[in-house]
Amino acid sequence: MSIDQRNPPHRPTPYAYLDMDRLRRNLGRMQTIADRHDVALRPHIKTHKSVEIARLQLDLGAVGVTASKPSEALPFIRAGVPSLLLAFPIIDTQRLRELLALAADHGTATTFILDSEAGADALAEAAAATGRILDVHIKIDVGLGRVGVSPTSPALTSLGETVARSPKLRLAGLISHAGHGYAATTSTMLAQIVRQERLLMLEAKERLSAIGLPLRLTVGSTPSVLSTDDFSGIDEVRPGNYALFDLTAQRLGVAAEAEIALAVVTTIVSQNAQRYIIDAGSKALSSDLGPHSSGGLSGFGRALLVDGRDADTRLTVSRLSEEHGFIPKEGTDLPTGTRLLILPNHSCPVVNLYDRLVVSDRPNEDVQVSARGALC
Amino acid sequence: MSIDQRNPPHRPTPYAYLDMDRLRRNLGRMQTIADRHDVALRPHIKTHKSVEIARLQLDLGAVGVTASKPSEALPFIRAGVPSLLLAFPIIDTQRLRELLALAADHGTATTFILDSEAGADALAEAAAATGRILDVHIKIDVGLGRVGVSPTSPALTSLGETVARSPKLRLAGLISHAGHGYAATTSTMLAQIVRQERLLMLEAKERLSAIGLPLRLTVGSTPSVLSTDDFSGIDEVRPGNYALFDLTAQRLGVAAEAEIALAVVTTIVSQNAQRYIIDAGSKALSSDLGPHSSGGLSGFGRALLVDGRDADTRLTVSRLSEEHGFIPKEGTDLPTGTRLLILPNHSCPVVNLYDRLVVSDRPNEDVQVSARGALC
Repeated sequence: MSIDQRNPPHRPTPYAYLDMDRLRRNLGRMQTIADRHDVALRPHIKTHKSVEIARLQLDLGAVGVTASKPSEALPFIRAGVPSLLLAFPIIDTQRLRELLALAADHGTATTFILDSEAGADALAEAAAATGRILDVHIKIDVGLGRVGVSPTSPALTSLGETVARSPKLRLAGLISHAGHGYAATTSTMLAQIVRQERLLMLEAKERLSAIGLPLRLTVGSTPSVLSTDDFSGIDEVRPGNYALFDLTAQRLGVAAEAEIALAVVTTIVSQNAQRYIIDAGSKALSSDLGPHSSGGLSGFGRALLVDGRDADTRLTVSRLSEEHGFIPKEGTDLPTGTRLLILPNHSCPVVNLYDRLVVSDRPNEDVQVSARGALC
Repeated sequence: MSIDQRNPPHRPTPYAYLDMDRLRRNLGRMQTIADRHDVALRPHIKTHKSVEIARLQLDLGAVGVTASKPSEALPFIRAGVPSLLLAFPIIDTQRLRELLALAADHGTATTFILDSEAGADALAEAAAATGRILDVHIKIDVGLGRVGVSPTSPALTSLGETVARSPKLRLAGLISHAGHGYAATTSTMLAQIVRQERLLMLEAKERLSAIGLPLRLTVGSTPSVLSTDDFSGIDEVRPGNYALFDLTAQRLGVAAEAEIALAVVTTIVSQNAQRYIIDAGSKALSSDLGPHSSGGLSGFGRALLVDGRDADTRLTVSRLSEEHGFIPKEGTDLPTGTRLLILPNHSCPVVNLYDRLVVSDRPNEDVQVSARGALC
């Protein structure tokens, strides 16, 4: 049995459904891994965007949180997280003012990232405007080809020197995200990407050793942390998706279906000879096929039966309109009105569509999505 | 030049940007077509979800609005729209109570749709609970294979008789949506689908003529209304996307790029030898490839330059992370910090991600997305 199928609350559908037992188990599993390998865990909150869930992570031992952008970070600073890493290259200081003022008020330690001289200038300007010295990490591109300097390029040492010279910035570490691991088609491929990430980060640190500063290394994504036992030289990991998991995590072999903690509850509202039509479309499930456009899954979600019906049935959402999903019947015969659970391809953009997550055993107290749809 | 590229407001990016001149022109064009062919226009508000834009449509002559679901309809009823068609098969009466009470308070005439005995039962139950008789349309499947009864099936006449016999329901018309037109690859194919929709609706009406009730025919989508001059026998059209248009409308040949009224304003925050990285990802652009999973476009949006830069440059968003977009450089050389406009594949799920749309000439007064992310 996957996510708690016994009795989802009778609310108007579609709604986002959180299995709190699964969530707690997922959070505990990751903290145990971090503790065993003596690395700090700084979960990325972009997955759940929920202060309540972040508190669970901190209570278990997380050193702080990671956020994608200022607006996403604000509710967590207001909630008093001790430490926040903003893992997005800031080049517009306007966005940082409110965040820095709020962090000062709440005693939240902040770290920023950069990968260019423009980024260093922007952060130094924000530091000057607020009378502070900002802790920064240089972003290293370990293969995703997105943000980051190449670990082998002259740009790395040059940028390192720029930051080290700046009276407004303190170079505290190096940061990476091996997001290309999501495109792995075998566990060997994924393990190879993770090994390479670690080696490239060690090499980048070595190349900056002339600067003479102690540099922390922070790496990670959910698949990478769950695909290695070798964290030597690594100080911190920043997985996010592990709180909820999804069909992508299952495809990559880092989670079982029984560990997926998020689903969308939907109802069959119509049907024809070929397919059921449900009341969850692209505005309830997103059209996401996997992180970083990774794909590798067929369809837009996996449908499971609830309410005591055959718990082993698995159907696929083959197509989405905005408010309708199409599910080929595959020989089943379900009446209109039947409720289904849809396991998502990628949990993170799904949570972003909802104000709250419904919890099975707390019918009157939903989990608030504190930073839902925060856009800049 | 496409959407107003001259000077998007200097707000933190990403934000959704509405060209009000384009919008007004699009709204006027559609009303003119409806007037010329003497059909009522009942725009679908799922595209903009905005009471302000619905008011513009009503002022131009729209007879009322179409909505996808109760939660999406509520702000429009509260705003006093004279008439609302809920174009989704309701089978859960719980969702209808608030809507019917609100509609009574505000004097909004309502019409519902159904395609099954279960739907007829649910609507009759809601009617009984509120002491009313509900106007209903039977949904006809004209080829999308989603909601609706086949126009040639015995189920149609049987359902027609059920509704006609019900003391709580008044059979007022037949409704269709030729959403399969979005998958057309040529304008001939699209025109053929539209012609077939009209003929099938006329046939369905003829088959129900024994019931002896005057049945209105309401059809449409943006591509279908813009691909025909033959509305004979049709009473009403329900396009939605035409307010904003998008790359799908352009691909189908029913809009020029210069008519697309919605874009996402974003900033280049990083770059490497191959590509620019922007601060708009799947949470700002959606991962939608086209309505009804139609596809046919490459990438996740088209990037245009702003702020007086070369207005003829066109680049493609090739890949999305949650907060980053990837844009291959294609020989261009733009500095980090450059702002871009992204024209979306499909405007409707993009608007759904935002609380407000920024308007070029009203920097202090955004258009509110009244029913943003309304989920059930």
